[in-house]
Amino acid sequence: MVSKSQIKLITSLQQKKYRDKTGLFVAEGPKVIAELQTAGLKLYAHFSTEFTNTASEKEVRISEAELQKISFLKSPNTSLAIFEIPKQKEIQTNGLQIALDAVRDPGNLGTIIRLCDWFGVTQLICSPDTADCFNPKVIQATMGSIVRIQIVYCSLSEYIKNSPLPVYGACMEGTNVYSAKYPEEALIVMGNEANGISKEIMGLLHEKITIPQFGVRQDTESLNVATATAILLSEFRRFTER
Amino acid sequence: MVSKSQIKLITSLQQKKYRDKTGLFVAEGPKVIAELQTAGLKLYAHFSTEFTNTASEKEVRISEAELQKISFLKSPNTSLAIFEIPKQKEIQTNGLQIALDAVRDPGNLGTIIRLCDWFGVTQLICSPDTADCFNPKVIQATMGSIVRIQIVYCSLSEYIKNSPLPVYGACMEGTNVYSAKYPEEALIVMGNEANGISKEIMGLLHEKITIPQFGVRQDTESLNVATATAILLSEFRRFTER
Repeated sequence: MVSKSQIKLITSLQQKKYRDKTGLFVAEGPKVIAELQTAGLKLYAHFSTEFTNTASEKEVRISEAELQKISFLKSPNTSLAIFEIPKQKEIQTNGLQIALDAVRDPGNLGTIIRLCDWFGVTQLICSPDTADCFNPKVIQATMGSIVRIQIVYCSLSEYIKNSPLPVYGACMEGTNVYSAKYPEEALIVMGNEANGISKEIMGLLHEKITIPQFGVRQDTESLNVATATAILLSEFRRFTER
Repeated sequence: MVSKSQIKLITSLQQKKYRDKTGLFVAEGPKVIAELQTAGLKLYAHFSTEFTNTASEKEVRISEAELQKISFLKSPNTSLAIFEIPKQKEIQTNGLQIALDAVRDPGNLGTIIRLCDWFGVTQLICSPDTADCFNPKVIQATMGSIVRIQIVYCSLSEYIKNSPLPVYGACMEGTNVYSAKYPEEALIVMGNEANGISKEIMGLLHEKITIPQFGVRQDTESLNVATATAILLSEFRRFTER
């Protein structure tokens, strides 16, 4: 059974304010939960309609009606867990890294985290106004990828100034992405969905890159930030020895 | 004012069955509606909270409460329009084309349509069990791109057998996408979100292509179909003269 205080806690964790306050976040579905456990994340509570013998105090068997009540999903899975937000590891200064300048949509952030996992990006830097990676929508969209990527929220301008990596940015007016060979280690900045990279960060880029448009349309509607990230990561990796 | 029968019609257009029956679909927001009008799509009815002088019989001024009632969106915009589904144009046999084998998610289809527009893909072939391109979620996600792409629903196997184009497919086990130079004119097949390309279509491919994985993870979770499409289109276009 789920107690009233547990329901209150779970519901509150939809909001960043309460995730920050409690140091907890919610994940749903056996697959995502198993991946987070395997990665060593600390389980705080685990609710499932499928437990038969609950081996641990943290495991609570609940009814489908109860799951419906606590789930954030339209079609709830069989289980929901609360995890502790892991402690920040030491910041890496090498490798291929992505920096997000105010990417607001949780779906885009989730897709970008999955892309980072696929392309071996080990650190994702997010400006403080980027969507929160422990947002339930992000957790569900990343399918467990989130445990393999170090995600750091900090001032992008400070980070760039202190980074030894060459800094590239995706812009509407830069050099053609297909015209250069890119280094294995770099920081690639992706901008906000509506406004692109902010003026301050634009001034800190070493090189601006553009994905050329081949279609017939004349407007300035840009590529979606997640698909643009896919293309840039592919271009940076195409010369990498595997 | 919106009449009861208009509300009934609009609500029914959420379902493919009624879109097919009436030959109508719904678009929301001034920007998307304007793009569809500019492209020459035939307007059936137009509801807006902002009309002052309604010049045409088709334009109906409504209250915000009425818009809330008819809108499919969580946060309704200022207007909603009903358009006639355009007639199928003649099938193109040349150019760069994408074929979707049972891509079910409307969000993925919408993203792929935007990508086709960006990369100058003029024809998108969809298997009958692919999401419907006049689904309201697809219409909103494409941001008007849908008017510039010829979308054909038909048997993929028949289409491939009759197409003069070389046929490539995105698979888990194919040649490395970075190892070849691709032709300007081709048909690229993308598979279902969970199962990839079906066995029947797999047997019709001329070449299987794989986007290599660079991350450390060992599981078989593949790239999302929309981001994989972005990367393949980028690879096919990188050698194209603009």
